[in-house]
Amino acid sequence: MQKTCLAEKLKSFSEHWSPKIVGELNGQHVKLVKFQGEFVWHHHDNEDELFLVLQGKFRMDYREPSGSEQSLEISAGEFVIVPRGTEHRPYAAEEVHVMLFEPVGTLNTGNVQSNLTVSAPAVI
Amino acid sequence: MQKTCLAEKLKSFSEHWSPKIVGELNGQHVKLVKFQGEFVWHHHDNEDELFLVLQGKFRMDYREPSGSEQSLEISAGEFVIVPRGTEHRPYAAEEVHVMLFEPVGTLNTGNVQSNLTVSAPAVI
Repeated sequence: MQKTCLAEKLKSFSEHWSPKIVGELNGQHVKLVKFQGEFVWHHHDNEDELFLVLQGKFRMDYREPSGSEQSLEISAGEFVIVPRGTEHRPYAAEEVHVMLFEPVGTLNTGNVQSNLTVSAPAVI
Repeated sequence: MQKTCLAEKLKSFSEHWSPKIVGELNGQHVKLVKFQGEFVWHHHDNEDELFLVLQGKFRMDYREPSGSEQSLEISAGEFVIVPRGTEHRPYAAEEVHVMLFEPVGTLNTGNVQSNLTVSAPAVI
């Protein structure tokens, strides 16, 4: 058994939109990711996703079942859970550091294939 | 969809060793708990448990499969995953604030019934 220091792990990479696996339990992954700029709209058919902000802030755009577009600003010390099926798109004006909890195998771009898709996130 | 502020949730309760549910996703609960003093030795037969320290620090005592007793000090910004089956006992000299990530239905005292057992954690 060992402990994991989030700050140390975050220091070990710099690229954006490329989640790194830092833990696994009960079929779920704990990931760290750095965001900057605008991601792609997507959803996950079978996975709920938690975004916990560790440093900075970002805006989560999402679509309600009616189709109406909404957004939430998530700052350090706050989290949001995006339910499966919900179209969403993170946007960060400045770099933000985020911890993710999601099932093993969750693709960062969900149902969408794009040049931002990371099919095999690194374990760090 | 809504966001959750950890500091606000932590302000809303003061008792120790009584996890509160602040989120649910993929059959897992996100909980917040305040520790102070010594908990009971226990294990979980079927659940891995993640402890992320938000404020303060605590010592996680645990037993290796050989039976040898070990401990890890976990400080703010660090987490530990206790695998199912591992005997463990948190101890905090001073109050510590912790986020837990574990399957829905996980009992705080695992296989042990004690006056610290919380069979139905509150949702806050």
